[in-house]
Amino acid sequence: MRIMSPKDFGLKREVEYGTPEQNKAALDIVDGVKKEGDAALLRFTEQFDGSRLTASQLRVTQEDIDAAYGLVDEAFLIAIREAAANIRKFHEKQLRNSWMDLQPDGTLLGQIMRPLKRVGVYVPGGKAAYPSSVLMNVIPAQVAGVPEIVMVTPPATGGKEGIDPFILVAAAEAGVKEIYRVGGAQAVAALAYGTETIIPVDKICGPGNIYVALAKRAVFGVVDIDSIAGPSEIAVLADAGADAAYIAADLLSQAEHDEMASSILVTPSRELADAVAAEVERQLADLPRQAIARSSIDNYGAVLLVETLAEGIDVVNQLAPEHLEILTEDPMKLLAYIENAGAIFLGPYSSEPVGDYFAGPNHILPTNGTARFSSPVNVDDFLKKSSLIYYSKEALMANGDKIMTLARHEGLEGHARAIEIRLEKERDIH
Amino acid sequence: MRIMSPKDFGLKREVEYGTPEQNKAALDIVDGVKKEGDAALLRFTEQFDGSRLTASQLRVTQEDIDAAYGLVDEAFLIAIREAAANIRKFHEKQLRNSWMDLQPDGTLLGQIMRPLKRVGVYVPGGKAAYPSSVLMNVIPAQVAGVPEIVMVTPPATGGKEGIDPFILVAAAEAGVKEIYRVGGAQAVAALAYGTETIIPVDKICGPGNIYVALAKRAVFGVVDIDSIAGPSEIAVLADAGADAAYIAADLLSQAEHDEMASSILVTPSRELADAVAAEVERQLADLPRQAIARSSIDNYGAVLLVETLAEGIDVVNQLAPEHLEILTEDPMKLLAYIENAGAIFLGPYSSEPVGDYFAGPNHILPTNGTARFSSPVNVDDFLKKSSLIYYSKEALMANGDKIMTLARHEGLEGHARAIEIRLEKERDIH
Repeated sequence: MRIMSPKDFGLKREVEYGTPEQNKAALDIVDGVKKEGDAALLRFTEQFDGSRLTASQLRVTQEDIDAAYGLVDEAFLIAIREAAANIRKFHEKQLRNSWMDLQPDGTLLGQIMRPLKRVGVYVPGGKAAYPSSVLMNVIPAQVAGVPEIVMVTPPATGGKEGIDPFILVAAAEAGVKEIYRVGGAQAVAALAYGTETIIPVDKICGPGNIYVALAKRAVFGVVDIDSIAGPSEIAVLADAGADAAYIAADLLSQAEHDEMASSILVTPSRELADAVAAEVERQLADLPRQAIARSSIDNYGAVLLVETLAEGIDVVNQLAPEHLEILTEDPMKLLAYIENAGAIFLGPYSSEPVGDYFAGPNHILPTNGTARFSSPVNVDDFLKKSSLIYYSKEALMANGDKIMTLARHEGLEGHARAIEIRLEKERDIH
Repeated sequence: MRIMSPKDFGLKREVEYGTPEQNKAALDIVDGVKKEGDAALLRFTEQFDGSRLTASQLRVTQEDIDAAYGLVDEAFLIAIREAAANIRKFHEKQLRNSWMDLQPDGTLLGQIMRPLKRVGVYVPGGKAAYPSSVLMNVIPAQVAGVPEIVMVTPPATGGKEGIDPFILVAAAEAGVKEIYRVGGAQAVAALAYGTETIIPVDKICGPGNIYVALAKRAVFGVVDIDSIAGPSEIAVLADAGADAAYIAADLLSQAEHDEMASSILVTPSRELADAVAAEVERQLADLPRQAIARSSIDNYGAVLLVETLAEGIDVVNQLAPEHLEILTEDPMKLLAYIENAGAIFLGPYSSEPVGDYFAGPNHILPTNGTARFSSPVNVDDFLKKSSLIYYSKEALMANGDKIMTLARHEGLEGHARAIEIRLEKERDIH
């Protein structure tokens, strides 16, 4: 693992927008489903997933779900149920009430919070079929109060016909009642525009391949979308007293995700730097996903040596990592200085997988430096706000002239007259 | 004004993405500024705004602002100061604290709220130079705690050299200290990538022409952006007792914005429908922006006749209007049934301009049916959240096995080992 100074390490990666050919392919699929509905959906499903389905076979049945339960083991069920309960509890604390501000002149102003009505969750097939991500997308929407949550996932998983049973069980445990075996850009188009079989949604979330991402971007505005996920990252800020084996294991847990993942240790301790680099080698030796992790560590991993923890914090804030672990003598002492990070893990027992699977906070986090301006998936993502204005006669009589002044300064006489007509009528009455 | 049934009226408008030529032009400008910095910025400013500036002339000086104060009248100053105070007070009520959940096993989980560090506000020149929009974009960012707010606006306003003094005064009153005379796609690029003169920001907001919108879309991901504003809309839901003159005035205040604006009355009363249609004609006769309003009313306006108020609510929820006025006998009675609307104005004195200028809620609202899933500009738009996980040793020992079970079911052995290495060490110690 490279050991270097922060200034020799390029902190920024470019945003991925796909090639023009990929964009055209995604747009053609979206357009086909928009125009032809189920017919196009079934045609693309045969073409890209190799599954020949009829429209009536698109929806997963209760029998399918019952069968999936027969294929998962008790230990998984126990763990996923407890994880779901923790995730639910954490997200329930994010809920907010609608509120009103009652003013002395009789005016009421407020903000009304409402759940979205219908949300679509995309769940990838293939090697990235993660039951935990089903929980992390579905539960915040449920907690927000979204009455209709629909899941789409390709009809084949990792080359095998059929949806991964662990995905189906996670969906059922999270309470999803409407699941379709359809994936790719065609699934995104169906959720955005609707087909004979699939009712359109208000928001599409969940990760997918580049075609899914480009399709989501194309339908944004027709529906809402979540952010486009980039490769995963971890930064560990540690001092000389930290356990090198823990840090190496945490860096590798990130690196095994994919070749583009980035694992970075930031430390003022040369000793720790050397020890972690050695531990990474040792632990890599028998890691099942060794090739992926090795490539990630070699290309996007680094130990960044800093002079002081304060400089380390600066580097972390520039990285704006998706995951940040702080393994220092007193990690709480540094918390107030962390400006940019998706999730912050403090102390030796807060290994990243604790948050990936179990503790309760969401594992869908801003990647690629976007923690500068965006947030983990949360309940607000599934709420919309409306402003409320109940203006009293007294308020209008007192403020009407000022409102007209501002409208006329903007050249909007019609706005001024909407006020004036009321003022005149009220003054006529009195 | 057309009177028709809701089913004869097309409720949906397409989302505007610009032509391929406009897209290419915007991307070329963005690319030029990204690569060449100030040189490109000044070149495009001369090309598109006709202003030949040096880099040192880009920034508006204190003298410029003092001069602007000399050009605005006292009535405007009084009105804009009171509007700013109302907007600030309303948005302060939206602020949220960071929070922690303290668990019996010593674990701390939480959500940390932080302001974005630097935000850019785009203010259009030309006929759409609205001081009120400066307040509506800047104040929520300030209330969120954003320490650096920078404004950009074209060096010429409505064909005249120089920035509109009302815009400069509104910015100064809102507390903006950093203003550049630059507009168009080149200004967006400068805010996203930075130049020798302009430090890059974390988020760009504010409306602009199609090139500004396309440039914002292009830099999304590098920075955050607000939503792309569409044409403005109002729906009025009214019963037989409502004042036809008030409704007509409010419909016209929307219609005068631009030819694409949409003004719709929804009512079960044929009498009111006829009276409003007649009033619209009467009031149109001497409206200064008559041509614009007439075109808007003819092409996008309508009175939709419904059987009952309940059906009217259904129609309104399908429209998902940017502005909704309810002028019925007891408007509060209907509030709980309104699912989709950017801002809801209740009763005869809550004319839309009250909210556009003065009451306090934001006037930047979701357009084009996006109130189904998005919200008025608010303080949350300028905050980011980080999750906090401080897991205790006790919690890890109790739950480590379940975390490993879930990780191994996803084929992520490295994740499991990051937990296992800790469990083994702790068990060795005891």
